Amino acid sequence: MLHLASSTDPAWAPSARDHLESILLDHAHCEKKAASTAVSLIFRYPERPGLMIPLARLAREELAHFEEVIEALRARGLEYRRLAPSPYAARLMTAVRSHEPARLLDTLLCCGLIEARSCERMGLLAEVLEDPALVKLYRGLLACEARHFDTYLDLARGEDLAPEDQLLARLEQLAAHEAAVLRETPGEIRLHGATGPLLQSDP
Amino acid sequence: MLHLASSTDPAWAPSARDHLESILLDHAHCEKKAASTAVSLIFRYPERPGLMIPLARLAREELAHFEEVIEALRARGLEYRRLAPSPYAARLMTAVRSHEPARLLDTLLCCGLIEARSCERMGLLAEVLEDPALVKLYRGLLACEARHFDTYLDLARGEDLAPEDQLLARLEQLAAHEAAVLRETPGEIRLHGATGPLLQSDP
Repeated sequence: MLHLASSTDPAWAPSARDHLESILLDHAHCEKKAASTAVSLIFRYPERPGLMIPLARLAREELAHFEEVIEALRARGLEYRRLAPSPYAARLMTAVRSHEPARLLDTLLCCGLIEARSCERMGLLAEVLEDPALVKLYRGLLACEARHFDTYLDLARGEDLAPEDQLLARLEQLAAHEAAVLRETPGEIRLHGATGPLLQSDP
Repeated sequence: MLHLASSTDPAWAPSARDHLESILLDHAHCEKKAASTAVSLIFRYPERPGLMIPLARLAREELAHFEEVIEALRARGLEYRRLAPSPYAARLMTAVRSHEPARLLDTLLCCGLIEARSCERMGLLAEVLEDPALVKLYRGLLACEARHFDTYLDLARGEDLAPEDQLLARLEQLAAHEAAVLRETPGEIRLHGATGPLLQSDP
């Protein structure tokens, strides 16, 4: 349903659980980035009024999640702070073609795939976490991520960027790219990192 | 209460009423810009965690207003589209000092003054508009703008950027600058424009 071309390595979730501060912190940054991406699309495509309200709603939800994750950090005695991002999203976006409307199509599909991967990983987290408040948080959020994947796909369809068969073929290509990017994303434990070596200097 | 150093020219509101499409369209862009400014401050100041949740909430409200104004345009058979911005905000921000923490203090105070001016102008619009739906929209929004002014001032105070007397003195200076910028903002009818010549090629 989520069109992902790979499943996360089973070793990821236990590693993530053991580096929960990094995961929560990275997650807060991801929600912030997701909101800013939606806002930047609103700025970039004023001539596509059909995008405006759905993207604004999406950005509002991402911001509300950002707030929720900061509260979850605080409930554990931790505080939001700067964190070097995973190179995942930037590498994923290298596949976006530069000419319109392919640029918009690819951007929407890549944004959708990030939501899909977030959904998968939040599901894995919800299975291994022990804190009931965090399990509840991630169960709630994974449903939103799945809905956001649908939103991005619906926006691509609604803007008539490509015939349906071409849209699905491109989604499949980008999903293969996403799986390769994820596999090659090194190092620290991140919401969108590979399993990677467990760094002691965390994060 | 709003600390503005000038009152809007009484000719502005009737002109705005007569160029309602421009005003609504400009207003939608202003809400979008306000949201993106709050998001950009979240990105710029991760080492100030006290700013994160208030700015995220503020950005969510601005996005919700953006959606409301687009719906108001649609209710009148109009659609959101590109619009050259008023130079008001960019000119206002030229007063922001480049060293921290003065940069953050000035930015928060200028953002607050934009909210204050929006509040004043929305009040004037609510008085002259005839469409009850728009009067209701602007009455609702002007209360939010006043609250946002308070939020920006509270954030400046909460971050201990300057002693209270210096903060108020700087607010007064910036308010005088805002009044000058507004007076000199030429041309088209905008939410934050001077009265200006009424252009026939609207907007």
